[in-house]
Amino acid sequence: RIAAEILDHLAKPIDGPLAGKKAVVTAGPTREALDPVRYISNHSSGKQGYAIATALSRLGADVTLVSGPTSLPQPAGVNFVQVETAVQMLDAVKSELPSDIFISVAAVADWRPAEPSDVKIKAKTTKDGLGSITLVENPDILKTISHMKGKRPSLVVGFAAETNDVEDHAQGKLERKGCDWIVANDVSGDVMGGSENEIAIIKRDGIERLPRMDKSAVAQNLALRIAENFSTIKAK
Amino acid sequence: RIAAEILDHLAKPIDGPLAGKKAVVTAGPTREALDPVRYISNHSSGKQGYAIATALSRLGADVTLVSGPTSLPQPAGVNFVQVETAVQMLDAVKSELPSDIFISVAAVADWRPAEPSDVKIKAKTTKDGLGSITLVENPDILKTISHMKGKRPSLVVGFAAETNDVEDHAQGKLERKGCDWIVANDVSGDVMGGSENEIAIIKRDGIERLPRMDKSAVAQNLALRIAENFSTIKAK
Repeated sequence: RIAAEILDHLAKPIDGPLAGKKAVVTAGPTREALDPVRYISNHSSGKQGYAIATALSRLGADVTLVSGPTSLPQPAGVNFVQVETAVQMLDAVKSELPSDIFISVAAVADWRPAEPSDVKIKAKTTKDGLGSITLVENPDILKTISHMKGKRPSLVVGFAAETNDVEDHAQGKLERKGCDWIVANDVSGDVMGGSENEIAIIKRDGIERLPRMDKSAVAQNLALRIAENFSTIKAK
Repeated sequence: RIAAEILDHLAKPIDGPLAGKKAVVTAGPTREALDPVRYISNHSSGKQGYAIATALSRLGADVTLVSGPTSLPQPAGVNFVQVETAVQMLDAVKSELPSDIFISVAAVADWRPAEPSDVKIKAKTTKDGLGSITLVENPDILKTISHMKGKRPSLVVGFAAETNDVEDHAQGKLERKGCDWIVANDVSGDVMGGSENEIAIIKRDGIERLPRMDKSAVAQNLALRIAENFSTIKAK
C-alpha cells in the first residue's frame, strides 16, 4: 500500500492539466435499510466511479471519492469517504464543497423504506398473501448539487444508467437535474459489475458517442474531456 | 485449486462418522429483483454456511452447498450450486433430495417484489412523496423440506437469526417449521459478516448453549453433534 501511494504520487503530475482543481466523485450503490439485517440496494460495483476518481487524480486534480459499499480497494492518492445510504452520501458531498468538479457516478437509491425497523421485521401475511413496504424519496444528490447557491461546482456531471431509450432518458435527465453533462450508459447487458462500458456524453450543445471500451479507458477519456473543458474556459 | 482439492480429499476420511450420509446445506443471502438493477437483500456473508458444509465434508459426508450470492471462494470437496433468489434456492434443494441431512443456514428473503420490472423503474411520486413496493411471500424452504412426504431428510436443521428474544423466537420457529433442531443466533451485534458467532442449539427435548467462538469452530461443533445424532440412532 505504501509503495502504491508513492507510485501514485510519482504518477500525479504537479503541473497536470487539472492541477489546482478540486473534484468530488461519488461511486458504488447505496444501501437503504429495511431493518438491521435487510436492505434495498443495486448491482453497481463502483468500478466506473473509482476509475474516474483515479483518472482525475492522474491529471493533477485533488480528488475526494465518496463511496457506497463496494468490494473494491481504496484507490491510492485519492481522499476516501465511506458511506452507506443516500442521505449520508449527500451529507458527505456537501461537506466537501466548495469544489470545481462534481461527478455523480454512484447508483443512488431513489427511494428508501419510510420507517426502518430497529428489530428484524416479522413477516406478516394478509389474506391474499401480499405485504408492502412504504417508501419515501431519497434526496436527489445530483439535482441538489446542481442547484447549490454560491457553492455550485463549475462543472457538474451526472450518470444515467438506463436499460432502454438511453439517450432520450439522458436528455430528459440533463434538463430535470440542472447539471452540465450527462454520461449515458446502457446497463441492459452486463455493464453493471462488468469491466467494460459504452457511453455517450450529452451536453447542452450536442452528443458525443464513445465506442465500447474498458472502464478505465472510459474514465481516462472523460477526465481528458473535463481537462479540455477547463482549459477552454481559461482560454476564453 | 487442484492442490486444494487433493488436500481436501486427503483430509476427508473414507470412514468418517458421516461417511455414506448425504447433506444439503444452504448459505448466504438471497437477492430478490425489483428491476434489472435493483434488489432487496440482506447482510448475510455466507461464512457460517460455508464453514458448516466444509465441516460436514471433513466428517465424511457427501455435501452439496446451495449458495446465494457471496464473495467467498467455493469450498473444495463440496458440490456447489449457485442461486440468486429464494425460488431458485428451493428448486435447487429439492433436486438434491433424497438426502439424510438438510441444514438451512441461508438468510432467505421472506418476501419478494410482486412484479419485478423488465426495465429500470422510474421513480414516481405521490402528493405526499410516498411510494410503495408490493411484496409476495417467498416459499418457506425450511418448512417445505420439513414437511416433504417420502423424501424428508431424517435430520432437518434451521437457523434463526434474531435481534431480540432470540431463544423464544427460535422455540416458536421449531414448532412452526416442523424441523428437528433450530440453531439460534443473535445478530444484533456484528455477527452478520463477522467471523464469530454465538449459538444455542434448540431441540424438542432441550437447549444447549455454546460460548461465542469462531464460525469454523461453531461449524465443527455442530457437525460433531450431527454425527453423534446419527451414531445414537444407529446404536438404538
